Amino acid sequence: MAELLDTISYPEDLRGLDAARLPDLAEELRGYLLESLSETGGHLGANLGTVELTLALHYTFQTPHDRLVWDVGHQAYVHKLLTGRRESFGTIRQAGGLSGFPKRAESPYDTFGVGHASTSISAALGMAQASAAQGEERAVAAIIGDGAMTAGMAFEALNHAGDLNANLLVILNDNEMSISPNVGALSQRFSRLIAGRWYNRMRDNADRALSRIPGARDIARRAEEHFKGLITPGTLFEELGFNYVGPVDGHNLDELLPILGNLRGMEGPRLLHVVTRKGKGFEPAENEPTKYHGVTPFDPATGAPRKSGGGAPAYTKVFGDALIETAAADERVTGITPAMREGSGLVEFEQRFPERFFDVGIAEQHALTFAAGQACEGLRPVVAIYSTFLQRAYDQLIHDIAIQNLPVVFAIDRAGIVGPDGPTHGGNFDLSFLRPVPNLTLMTPANEVDLRNMLATGLALEGPSALRYPKDKAVGLATSGPPSPLEVGRAEVVREGSGGQALLVFGPFIGPALEAAEERDATVVNMRFVKPLDTALLTELAATHRHLVTVEENTLAGGAGEAVRAFLASLDPEVRVTCLGLPDAFIPQGERTALLGDYGLDAAGMTAALRAHTAPRPVARECPQK
Amino acid sequence: MAELLDTISYPEDLRGLDAARLPDLAEELRGYLLESLSETGGHLGANLGTVELTLALHYTFQTPHDRLVWDVGHQAYVHKLLTGRRESFGTIRQAGGLSGFPKRAESPYDTFGVGHASTSISAALGMAQASAAQGEERAVAAIIGDGAMTAGMAFEALNHAGDLNANLLVILNDNEMSISPNVGALSQRFSRLIAGRWYNRMRDNADRALSRIPGARDIARRAEEHFKGLITPGTLFEELGFNYVGPVDGHNLDELLPILGNLRGMEGPRLLHVVTRKGKGFEPAENEPTKYHGVTPFDPATGAPRKSGGGAPAYTKVFGDALIETAAADERVTGITPAMREGSGLVEFEQRFPERFFDVGIAEQHALTFAAGQACEGLRPVVAIYSTFLQRAYDQLIHDIAIQNLPVVFAIDRAGIVGPDGPTHGGNFDLSFLRPVPNLTLMTPANEVDLRNMLATGLALEGPSALRYPKDKAVGLATSGPPSPLEVGRAEVVREGSGGQALLVFGPFIGPALEAAEERDATVVNMRFVKPLDTALLTELAATHRHLVTVEENTLAGGAGEAVRAFLASLDPEVRVTCLGLPDAFIPQGERTALLGDYGLDAAGMTAALRAHTAPRPVARECPQK
Repeated sequence: MAELLDTISYPEDLRGLDAARLPDLAEELRGYLLESLSETGGHLGANLGTVELTLALHYTFQTPHDRLVWDVGHQAYVHKLLTGRRESFGTIRQAGGLSGFPKRAESPYDTFGVGHASTSISAALGMAQASAAQGEERAVAAIIGDGAMTAGMAFEALNHAGDLNANLLVILNDNEMSISPNVGALSQRFSRLIAGRWYNRMRDNADRALSRIPGARDIARRAEEHFKGLITPGTLFEELGFNYVGPVDGHNLDELLPILGNLRGMEGPRLLHVVTRKGKGFEPAENEPTKYHGVTPFDPATGAPRKSGGGAPAYTKVFGDALIETAAADERVTGITPAMREGSGLVEFEQRFPERFFDVGIAEQHALTFAAGQACEGLRPVVAIYSTFLQRAYDQLIHDIAIQNLPVVFAIDRAGIVGPDGPTHGGNFDLSFLRPVPNLTLMTPANEVDLRNMLATGLALEGPSALRYPKDKAVGLATSGPPSPLEVGRAEVVREGSGGQALLVFGPFIGPALEAAEERDATVVNMRFVKPLDTALLTELAATHRHLVTVEENTLAGGAGEAVRAFLASLDPEVRVTCLGLPDAFIPQGERTALLGDYGLDAAGMTAALRAHTAPRPVARECPQK
Repeated sequence: MAELLDTISYPEDLRGLDAARLPDLAEELRGYLLESLSETGGHLGANLGTVELTLALHYTFQTPHDRLVWDVGHQAYVHKLLTGRRESFGTIRQAGGLSGFPKRAESPYDTFGVGHASTSISAALGMAQASAAQGEERAVAAIIGDGAMTAGMAFEALNHAGDLNANLLVILNDNEMSISPNVGALSQRFSRLIAGRWYNRMRDNADRALSRIPGARDIARRAEEHFKGLITPGTLFEELGFNYVGPVDGHNLDELLPILGNLRGMEGPRLLHVVTRKGKGFEPAENEPTKYHGVTPFDPATGAPRKSGGGAPAYTKVFGDALIETAAADERVTGITPAMREGSGLVEFEQRFPERFFDVGIAEQHALTFAAGQACEGLRPVVAIYSTFLQRAYDQLIHDIAIQNLPVVFAIDRAGIVGPDGPTHGGNFDLSFLRPVPNLTLMTPANEVDLRNMLATGLALEGPSALRYPKDKAVGLATSGPPSPLEVGRAEVVREGSGGQALLVFGPFIGPALEAAEERDATVVNMRFVKPLDTALLTELAATHRHLVTVEENTLAGGAGEAVRAFLASLDPEVRVTCLGLPDAFIPQGERTALLGDYGLDAAGMTAALRAHTAPRPVARECPQK
């Protein structure tokens, strides 16, 4: 079943195989992936699509001396299986287990840690330049998907690589374009030819020949403008100074091996265009690539998931439904996503309002300024974005939206702990980087009713606003009637206690807070607004309580707790403040509920924080600060 | 002298002129610009280069109903002069005066506030889409320079515009490429032809003709690959779905007017390539475009500045010199800038170490991840970047550098108040957005000696670090001997006082702090490190002082003062903390010293903060928090 695979622990073993055996190995790897991921879940489609490419790369490149830089990295499972990590593969994306992405600390074969898209060309270029400066003979290749290639950052890197004339191979893994057999056949011949050593010479000759015919250059270039639509996919890359080779069938090792072998030894910036099929070899995934991009455990025979979700809807779904409701009532509302339609809950919105839905591609920077342009003309754009990806558009948020006080609403998903994706996708910074932004209203829904009303609140404001919620199920409250705006900067006292202590909750922790409040009869407040704070209520609480505990799913540095403490300092009261939140560290992968417990963001943690305040002024665990 | 200009207050007046008068008006405008800017200073070269283009745009477009979106905006002075702001033009870039950039609050003709590069296409696309959705007949044009066009964000926007097939005109103002007269003449005929209404039909015909010849399409497109280097500048844009027109001489109104008139009425995404000369009509600026990009008051006859700098060197220069010293001693050191060689003090560094200097273009995202790649291979990259532009690469700082704990040093210039450039360029957020980032060492030099040693400190660390300094002259200390690393997290007590109060200074405020400390015999500390804080010293100060005043040139929300307060809360001492810093607002343009005074960041402000603490517990101006 896996007899070949069993002989391969490292790429050296692989390179000892006869090339004719590689297709069999590819089949074994597909079987292994399916079996393993059907148990653990993970990124399936992209990995089935890059089996042959990964084999061919490790076969022709001298890894780890040569550097492979995987873009995004969710297609690097086969790479992990071939580089000493098969035994631990069953732990992928679990607490303490293998990362779902390349990670430098995990293996010398993982040359660059990834998770976000479109970083690979920049990183590989830096490596190539450094190797050249150090006199190292080293091949460097970035492997990047066609989606990631649309991000501005990839363009910036291509542009710079062409300018530096760096020794860099970029492999464009194109799994959108369907390649027809004859084009494939043509390109095969063409690519072999072009990748040969005489390629550069031939091109120089053609160039010289043309230059001898008076006017030929001008004619050639003018004529070309009339052939719009007839241009090869490589033109754009050639314009940026790359030698373009392709397209090549990325599942055909007979094509891949000689071309990669040739390309490895060439100089200057080269781009190999490889066409692959997401989910290759597993019919359900080939037919529905988006559904099988990332999977929970499933039945490998049918592709059906092993357990259904059940329970309360996810916050993502609550948001998507609320956006539809608000858009139905207000035709100014638009929905914008940077390539996260499914993840942000906008599938139905697109169906209902196709003309008001904008998937701009992996282009966070553009997404925000495009929204700003819409807002200038009176629309009410809602940008649905993951917390971690909003980091990509921080300047646009400040420079294009907040300075101009434009009414753009940010629906920030995956705020706080994200679980199995781990540190690259952590949403633990947004309250800190958003709180300093002037003009911004910043909201933390405690439940689905809050989320709906906060969306309405944002849409009713004349300036920018953000609401942030975790990758989790909502509380399970009934939502009836349309969302309606909240009073800005007004918190809600959920429980009035007489014990002199209060839990000030930012986000979906009212349940555990109420549980923790029992023992000491503490007050519980749903704070709702990080900015502006409910300073009237805080003033009142400071006068009537001796100890306040803030609760937030965000790093403590610069977070909501510090905002509360800063305001209270201006009152100079006797009240003490303890801050519960995430530490000054990148949060490891793991199960969200378990991680929340680790950081005291549950009933036990809140109980402990309340208990720690025993006397007029003894304090055990005030705001840890590194 | 300005008789035509005197008749023009608004574009309506302009459109009433005979087109034959426009060249005279252009000449008057150049004279006016030179005279005015020689008195006030400002952006000179770009504005001299866009006189005719601006005239042609307001002449052919129905502004303000039609939308002109200026990229960056420092080339929009003529636009300001033609839209009702000539009388106040002498106040440009001064406190309370006209902004040096388009600003929505200033005029309905300023459709989008700018300052940072490469936002115009995104904003214009949002406007075009919104206008179409609202059934408004409205032309929208973005005017963007060739430098700004290299930023990834511009590429993202072009890509999306082509996808939406939006009614959008992008004007590429190319002032790098030198256009030879005959190419200009050819392009003139060609451009007129192509902009005509029959253009699309003609292209369709050519396409159909080719499709009738068996194999012609394939031949055409394969042949094209051999013509690399012969391709028109428009190919890249055509690939992205734009109709490309140009290049056109941007100083020839006879060319510009008919082409813009035609293009205004066309549908779909169009790109007009205009070639202009920076500094056009003023010889010193034509010869040295970089020097005359932005100017201080100068003699209009010779171009010589009216007063020389004098005094202590700027922090920028101190940094540039220190980088040369450290690079001379350590061949791993590289210098990276996103298109700010002069502004970041790297001119000499490039001359000394051309192979270790990297200007990556307006590409902040790429700059950081390129640095990360270098660091992976053992180099020690120093990214020299303005505070406000680091906002563009926040995700790369977190995701590519901090998570992997890579040794990249950030030399952050223009931190805090920037002066005449105003809110778009404000550097008042960096301490807040950097403090939450794990693994990062964050430093605030008090003077040139600190800056030099902090650069050495960063280069000696195994993880990422940042030092930030303002756009100002250094203190004037003698620097002798090479820079040497400081002990990380160690503050320096500059003055030991016995009055029970202390000034904790983050940044170049030791002079005023010492002045303020006299009256009450306060302690003065050069804190040096925002992260990690000198917790040992803070613990000691908390025990020996009753009142601490933090001083930082950063917004108070999430800044260094809050970090101090958070640590002290864990000690639960009797000591009180007052935070001096910038308010929760965008800082208006003005003179830096005056603005510092407005916000209490001078001796008077510190004195007032010390005086306000009179009794055991009466507090007047603790951390204002909105």
